[in-house]
Amino acid sequence: MSDLLKKLQWRYATKKFNPAKQVPQEKIERILEAIRLTATSSGLQPYEVIVVSNPELRAQIQPHAWNQAQITEASHLLVFAAWDNYTSDRINMMFDLVNDERGFKNEGWENYRQQVLGSYVPRDAEVNYQHAARQAYIGLGTALIAAAEEGVDSTPMEGFDPVKVDEILGLKARGLRSVIILPLGYRADEGDWLQNLKKVRRSRDKFIIELK
Amino acid sequence: MSDLLKKLQWRYATKKFNPAKQVPQEKIERILEAIRLTATSSGLQPYEVIVVSNPELRAQIQPHAWNQAQITEASHLLVFAAWDNYTSDRINMMFDLVNDERGFKNEGWENYRQQVLGSYVPRDAEVNYQHAARQAYIGLGTALIAAAEEGVDSTPMEGFDPVKVDEILGLKARGLRSVIILPLGYRADEGDWLQNLKKVRRSRDKFIIELK
Repeated sequence: MSDLLKKLQWRYATKKFNPAKQVPQEKIERILEAIRLTATSSGLQPYEVIVVSNPELRAQIQPHAWNQAQITEASHLLVFAAWDNYTSDRINMMFDLVNDERGFKNEGWENYRQQVLGSYVPRDAEVNYQHAARQAYIGLGTALIAAAEEGVDSTPMEGFDPVKVDEILGLKARGLRSVIILPLGYRADEGDWLQNLKKVRRSRDKFIIELK
Repeated sequence: MSDLLKKLQWRYATKKFNPAKQVPQEKIERILEAIRLTATSSGLQPYEVIVVSNPELRAQIQPHAWNQAQITEASHLLVFAAWDNYTSDRINMMFDLVNDERGFKNEGWENYRQQVLGSYVPRDAEVNYQHAARQAYIGLGTALIAAAEEGVDSTPMEGFDPVKVDEILGLKARGLRSVIILPLGYRADEGDWLQNLKKVRRSRDKFIIELK
């Protein structure tokens, strides 16, 4: 079995963290770096990742996340928050950054910029947010693997009230909307009902279709 | 640098594949297995992955995907296709599978089944599809890493007409809607404008927000 498949077998949606065990900062940094490096549509990276260390903020979030214990008991709490819209400023910022970093302008790339501006900017903000939110899930898929590589447990969570979380974290003023929450930490020795249960997935023939 | 970060640095959205180089089937199988194993919301796996080997089908897709050469020149073509809706049958199928595989019923799990049925089934099909489509992006994020681990190049593509692709692949009859396409193969030695350009991402301080 490949390393990656071992990591994916090892990970599970941790239900009970050990609140006494902190994840070292260098591990958090590598997890964040993996999210930063992975792909997004047109390379726009249309989301940001909020690392919520403040215990009061985490306590405020908890009642709006089904009172799940991981919100306060995990070592770290990541919130993936997507751009609330694609604006000209945001799109140009990323295209300009690419030009700056590569040190030249390219006609094909500039034409592509105009195509993206022309199709995204006039679109409804909600459509744009939904598109941006999907990209955050690529980051989430990456973060689960990055955490597992570090021996760090994680729990992807959609079960929260995004409007309340946006309020608590002041995301609206940043032009962001919360999409998914990811507590990181170490599984508790006891009290996690899921920890020792078999990981269940549909069999290959019910998940993969081959059109030959 | 960790193995994962190296893989993420190595990969890029390949613009030109070598059509003569096929990816060995065992590598494809490990990539598919990684997608199958990764997380989805409530473990429902609300999408399927179509491996399109048939060259005629790929040629039919190409004009509906901006004529991008990767559609026909890559070794393999994956299409991530999300459930068009969450139905009682689909949700019960996954909860029943979990019970079957674990060999017992659990009251908390059964209560959770009722909660999922109660909130998803009455919802608009489009809302449910959008939720399912997001899960496919976790699979995509996983597939990019799995491919890189195998030394296989890939190109995530949103630029296609999903209605046409659904028609060509007969997805409607399967209750699926195409979400994203992922050609897999080996980069060509020449003719890929992106291959040697610097990967550009926003700096950590423009992508990560810390709330301490």
